[in-house]
Amino acid sequence: MKILIINGPNLNLLGKREPKIYGTQSMDAILDELSELCEIEYFQSNHEGAIIDKLHAAGFDASYRGIVLNAGAYTHTSLAIADAIAAIEVPVVEVHISNIHAREEIRHKSMISSVCYGVIAGFGMQSYRLGVEALMRCEP
Amino acid sequence: MKILIINGPNLNLLGKREPKIYGTQSMDAILDELSELCEIEYFQSNHEGAIIDKLHAAGFDASYRGIVLNAGAYTHTSLAIADAIAAIEVPVVEVHISNIHAREEIRHKSMISSVCYGVIAGFGMQSYRLGVEALMRCEP
Amino acid sequence: MKILIINGPNLNLLGKREPKIYGTQSMDAILDELSELCEIEYFQSNHEGAIIDKLHAAGFDASYRGIVLNAGAYTHTSLAIADAIAAIEVPVVEVHISNIHAREEIRHKSMISSVCYGVIAGFGMQSYRLGVEALMRCEP
Amino acid sequence: MKILIINGPNLNLLGKREPKIYGTQSMDAILDELSELCEIEYFQSNHEGAIIDKLHAAGFDASYRGIVLNAGAYTHTSLAIADAIAAIEVPVVEVHISNIHAREEIRHKSMISSVCYGVIAGFGMQSYRLGVEALMRCEP
Amino acid sequence: MKILIINGPNLNLLGKREPKIYGTQSMDAILDELSELCEIEYFQSNHEGAIIDKLHAAGFDASYRGIVLNAGAYTHTSLAIADAIAAIEVPVVEVHISNIHAREEIRHKSMISSVCYGVIAGFGMQSYRLGVEALMRCEP
Amino acid sequence: MKILIINGPNLNLLGKREPKIYGTQSMDAILDELSELCEIEYFQSNHEGAIIDKLHAAGFDASYRGIVLNAGAYTHTSLAIADAIAAIEVPVVEVHISNIHAREEIRHKSMISSVCYGVIAGFGMQSYRLGVEALMRCEP
Amino acid sequence: MKILIINGPNLNLLGKREPKIYGTQSMDAILDELSELCEIEYFQSNHEGAIIDKLHAAGFDASYRGIVLNAGAYTHTSLAIADAIAAIEVPVVEVHISNIHAREEIRHKSMISSVCYGVIAGFGMQSYRLGVEALMRCEP
Amino acid sequence: MKILIINGPNLNLLGKREPKIYGTQSMDAILDELSELCEIEYFQSNHEGAIIDKLHAAGFDASYRGIVLNAGAYTHTSLAIADAIAAIEVPVVEVHISNIHAREEIRHKSMISSVCYGVIAGFGMQSYRLGVEALMRCEP
Amino acid sequence: MKILIINGPNLNLLGKREPKIYGTQSMDAILDELSELCEIEYFQSNHEGAIIDKLHAAGFDASYRGIVLNAGAYTHTSLAIADAIAAIEVPVVEVHISNIHAREEIRHKSMISSVCYGVIAGFGMQSYRLGVEALMRCEP
Amino acid sequence: MKILIINGPNLNLLGKREPKIYGTQSMDAILDELSELCEIEYFQSNHEGAIIDKLHAAGFDASYRGIVLNAGAYTHTSLAIADAIAAIEVPVVEVHISNIHAREEIRHKSMISSVCYGVIAGFGMQSYRLGVEALMRCEP
Amino acid sequence: MKILIINGPNLNLLGKREPKIYGTQSMDAILDELSELCEIEYFQSNHEGAIIDKLHAAGFDASYRGIVLNAGAYTHTSLAIADAIAAIEVPVVEVHISNIHAREEIRHKSMISSVCYGVIAGFGMQSYRLGVEALMRCEP
Amino acid sequence: MKILIINGPNLNLLGKREPKIYGTQSMDAILDELSELCEIEYFQSNHEGAIIDKLHAAGFDASYRGIVLNAGAYTHTSLAIADAIAAIEVPVVEVHISNIHAREEIRHKSMISSVCYGVIAGFGMQSYRLGVEALMRCEP
Repeated sequence: MKILIINGPNLNLLGKREPKIYGTQSMDAILDELSELCEIEYFQSNHEGAIIDKLHAAGFDASYRGIVLNAGAYTHTSLAIADAIAAIEVPVVEVHISNIHAREEIRHKSMISSVCYGVIAGFGMQSYRLGVEALMRCEP
Repeated sequence: MKILIINGPNLNLLGKREPKIYGTQSMDAILDELSELCEIEYFQSNHEGAIIDKLHAAGFDASYRGIVLNAGAYTHTSLAIADAIAAIEVPVVEVHISNIHAREEIRHKSMISSVCYGVIAGFGMQSYRLGVEALMRCEP
Repeated sequence: MKILIINGPNLNLLGKREPKIYGTQSMDAILDELSELCEIEYFQSNHEGAIIDKLHAAGFDASYRGIVLNAGAYTHTSLAIADAIAAIEVPVVEVHISNIHAREEIRHKSMISSVCYGVIAGFGMQSYRLGVEALMRCEP
Repeated sequence: MKILIINGPNLNLLGKREPKIYGTQSMDAILDELSELCEIEYFQSNHEGAIIDKLHAAGFDASYRGIVLNAGAYTHTSLAIADAIAAIEVPVVEVHISNIHAREEIRHKSMISSVCYGVIAGFGMQSYRLGVEALMRCEP
Repeated sequence: MKILIINGPNLNLLGKREPKIYGTQSMDAILDELSELCEIEYFQSNHEGAIIDKLHAAGFDASYRGIVLNAGAYTHTSLAIADAIAAIEVPVVEVHISNIHAREEIRHKSMISSVCYGVIAGFGMQSYRLGVEALMRCEP
Repeated sequence: MKILIINGPNLNLLGKREPKIYGTQSMDAILDELSELCEIEYFQSNHEGAIIDKLHAAGFDASYRGIVLNAGAYTHTSLAIADAIAAIEVPVVEVHISNIHAREEIRHKSMISSVCYGVIAGFGMQSYRLGVEALMRCEP
Repeated sequence: MKILIINGPNLNLLGKREPKIYGTQSMDAILDELSELCEIEYFQSNHEGAIIDKLHAAGFDASYRGIVLNAGAYTHTSLAIADAIAAIEVPVVEVHISNIHAREEIRHKSMISSVCYGVIAGFGMQSYRLGVEALMRCEP
Repeated sequence: MKILIINGPNLNLLGKREPKIYGTQSMDAILDELSELCEIEYFQSNHEGAIIDKLHAAGFDASYRGIVLNAGAYTHTSLAIADAIAAIEVPVVEVHISNIHAREEIRHKSMISSVCYGVIAGFGMQSYRLGVEALMRCEP
Repeated sequence: MKILIINGPNLNLLGKREPKIYGTQSMDAILDELSELCEIEYFQSNHEGAIIDKLHAAGFDASYRGIVLNAGAYTHTSLAIADAIAAIEVPVVEVHISNIHAREEIRHKSMISSVCYGVIAGFGMQSYRLGVEALMRCEP
Repeated sequence: MKILIINGPNLNLLGKREPKIYGTQSMDAILDELSELCEIEYFQSNHEGAIIDKLHAAGFDASYRGIVLNAGAYTHTSLAIADAIAAIEVPVVEVHISNIHAREEIRHKSMISSVCYGVIAGFGMQSYRLGVEALMRCEP
Repeated sequence: MKILIINGPNLNLLGKREPKIYGTQSMDAILDELSELCEIEYFQSNHEGAIIDKLHAAGFDASYRGIVLNAGAYTHTSLAIADAIAAIEVPVVEVHISNIHAREEIRHKSMISSVCYGVIAGFGMQSYRLGVEALMRCEP
Repeated sequence: MKILIINGPNLNLLGKREPKIYGTQSMDAILDELSELCEIEYFQSNHEGAIIDKLHAAGFDASYRGIVLNAGAYTHTSLAIADAIAAIEVPVVEVHISNIHAREEIRHKSMISSVCYGVIAGFGMQSYRLGVEALMRCEP
């Protein structure tokens, strides 16, 4: 069984982008670390529609134990991604690198939390690891 | 003359997705039924930009009598689709399978209604048929 | 089986009143047209209470297939009419001549949509016809 | 001395209407029960204006010890009934069969509470009895 | 030519009701005074629908120079009366005995002001006289 | 079977405190009166946590027929007391001495009403008696 | 006895400014007309502070029967003018040439209405005359 | 080094309380499980002040690696607990058993998130384990 | 005569806690300084209920000239403390070390200001001294 | 070194104006009293611009130890005065005679508090003295 | 033809005031630079009324090609200046030195933008030059 | 060095679309004009994701002096584009053809202004030229 990690807009810039908020660790390092726990598939896109397409593609496929989704800014604006999560069968864990509640007002409200299995925010790149462990350990 | 039917995000899952809200009838069945009324063209995308591109492509083409648009979740978040509808010449009818006003608060407000010719919601797959008939019968 | 059409406040002025919004077609013309589709009963009142009384009188009577209701301004202020619709057994379709979403803010929110079977707005007098057809074609 | 019980819109449907919310006990049964406590007069109308007329008719008549008013949906929309209660001399107790605070947001705010002598909600048909007892026992 | 004065809910209680707000002068006195200026017709109802009916009846009748309307509490809740005023041809002046802006928040917003010819508030029973004079003097 | 009466913050000052709002009757008098109806246990605390502890202690104990709770100012600020009421099995009736809806805005919204069996407000010390009678008479 | 008329910001442009809203009659014409009714003093300033100074200067002087104030845009932003009106002894009538309630949202709320004796709006230059008459006729 | 787990109001009822939301697993079971990972200290109180006292007692003691806090309903109402977290030196992880974003509106906003190191919600009793692991693995 | 100083939640950490906001002066130093002005009693608690108990204990005791209250975070959330202040007879002065209006939005609104004698904020530890002097000098 | 006291709009009426709110003590008396503490300069204007001009004139002059500002109604509407305070170097203490938080809603929010050194409100004319003492005693 | 540059409140302090926001360039330097492009007239005032007077004086004078207005804090509070801009004939360009949208919430909303020809913000002193060029190049 | 001009959704229709708002000048004409000032690259897309991809591609490339971005409707809905602007190193100037503040409410708030270098709106196609000149002249 495998776990799909989806990163949303601007998360392809990890390492390059605002290191005070997002740290300097690259995504590759954490993916390597997670590959020791279980099979990991990684997908990143800046396109809302492409994220929805990917959720559909994996969301009815029983070979996925779960999806760890960092939807970036779409977290706060995309009802369409929320609808996709609600529509699919594979459980989704919402993660954030930074503590979104300690940032600007607009980042305090997530449109997808209510349809996710659970939420993890603020632990830097370890948020991905905690998300993977949550999916491995729990029975959604 | 023909009518273009556009379905927005997650509507490719009709039948598979939350049948209590969206029913079990497939899109194909209703398209077959409508083809007996007039020439029908069908387009679905999960990409906001692709829906805008399609509205532009058809919206200045006099061979279309009208467009029946179920914008899904983009109904409530996309000012860009609303702008596209306002910009084109072919009339657009907004339809919804479910009664969006009987669902969550965020689905009560449509960003596109004010630039559409009319709105039809809540009649299941028959909403599409009523939209097509409205375009065939009226002189926008 | 018959269908009851209820018109709310100021709709007795159709033809006389603001033709730019409501058109110049009289109610009689559309009632004649609809009588060819099925048996039609027509009721108009400017009294909120009289509309509730009528909804009660017809709403438990199995000889009505449905009710097409244009509640006029009461659409936006009458919780009592909404309660009446929720209380009765005959399905109610909400219709509006104009596209209420393209008008003033106060007309964007309907208090009755959530308890109606479906909503149709913006097709001029054809909104009534679409409402009748929706009731004839669907299995609420 | 007697007590007037006024029921507002849709409360003529008690027993017929949404029994999960309003129960199955008829109004007659509770009126019989209350008649053993004191002289009871009963009035029901779906018309906001008729309720105001009735409040005026009884409200300056010293033979009434008080009025028990279940204004139904008008509770939440009628400033005119609130003005009538404030204008008259006979004290009014506001009652509700259901716990309005456990229902939809719009039913949480009463426009008449501030001008009533007291408020009782959520005890089913016994709310009427508690209202009558409150009037019998207290010195407004 | 004559002028119609319409009084809304609870204004039949003038003199009896909250004299600190509404004064002790009776409506008859002011009507007598106004009859010396022009022909006056007087109508009072606690029923929203009856006020709309009356506005319709007089509103297309060229023998009326204007209507002076004190809609009482319906000022703040009745979109249907506002629609009736907008629909008719005879000009309507909105009057209030008390200064509604110095009372509770809910009385600060009038739903009918925007469709009236003008607004007069706070001059006690003289508000009616000023309303009549405004209609006599101006060319709406 | 007995009934527990819980009084929240500042209600130990009854008699001493703002007699225009709370009257001059002492709590002892009403407790004596109620003891003639059934066994009464009385608890008062200014501590939110102590009220929660007491609700837990009694709330799973079948020897209590119900709890009459005047949560004072915590009515409007304590989600934790609301959660305690929702968690326990013994029914809770919310009572208020004054008509909270006729006081400041902040007292119009109760955080506990939606999880209580019913609500009684405005009848002075008789509110407690009505609460006890409601519990004795009804089958929650 | 005399009456002071105060015009606020931009009202020195009457005749020059947006004639669709403010008409083409000059202030001089209406001042001449009013001089036949009683002694009139006229003051205009675009300075909030100067209007306050003028209100103070006249507001404790018993030779003024009243003040007719068109505060222009300061109507909606100046708490300081409202405080001045509340502080002085001579009664102030608020007037507006246009029907401010039929204009933009920001003009619907007046900060000074609640401390004025009465309000008159929408009768063009006749609003000033009605204001003067109100002061002459009433006993504030 | 040890980790302190603090449970807020009503969490002493775990197992007894609303199992559909909080599950049936007892707190003891998860504490046993966590004791295998590191030294665990457990504290529960329904008193806001007692939670603050405990945070102070541990918050400057370098023998604690961190605090896992489930503040229950105080999450949404206690600025004082938020201030305590901000004041102390030991890092605090906010956890919730249920997905608070999928519950009532009032539970969507946490007052403490912005001062916590990170947030974990929705994984049942495993939320505590993820919180402990986050503290063990990260360098706040 | 003496003055009671009450400090609310987290103010036991003065000196230890966020020195950029609260400074480095200890509470003892300012208490010593104030003891030269008059007899001072000091009370601190993190418990809302304990603060209320203390206010009750001192609030009817004529040996206290006044109470200087820094309610900390409870300033912004405790209606119960506000009720206690309103209920007692000894005057209360609200003080804050920091300028709460220059901090986060939630600290701009005090729930207790309206029932206090006066408010002093922003002068560091000298706020306490100004509060004491205000009580010594004024005749509440 | 000297202290500048600035009084804003309507404060020239102290003694004449609403004595229930502002007391009967004249400004002269308090100025005399303060002159014994340090050199005092006094400035009053009803003009927002004049207050800004004065703040600029004194605000960069090291001979002023501070400014005590009672901005009257401009407290709640003038961002320009707030900007002036933020721009200058001499510290400003905001004072109010009355407890603004116990008055109308609009007076609860000050636009200048966040840029002032501190705030004092509610101590009558003694508020000025406390403001002067705060400036003399503290090291802004 | 010439261009009038108007600076509002506190902009006389440019260079002296908050250099992190407003830079260190003086107004004189930019005026010199602009004088090479066309004839420039410069006006600064801290008085809202004086700015309105100046707008009136120049606004009907065909020798002005346009007005570049930096209204400072009045941008966000002055409806009277907005009315003046709407009333005059010479086009007005709104400029800001800083990017007002990157500052506090209250500076995000301009009351004058909707009546200006265009808006330029954020380019430091070059904002004035861009405003002048916009007026020189465009045909309003 | 070159400047990149990015046009967002529906801006491919310039010339075809609502000429009353957007004028009749084509994009080509202005691009030709700008090519005389510096090297210009042009990109248009209706896809939010494609705009983000382009911002990333150019945003770390030192051969670009700046980016002129007209994000169309995404200006008001795309936090993801705002995040991209904040993440890249090349400065971005926000431009609009129309004065967005003179249009519908929803267009008054830009989500990207706060992260742009500056904002220019309302000068028709000249807004692009002013944007390019701003980048050429300033030292971001």
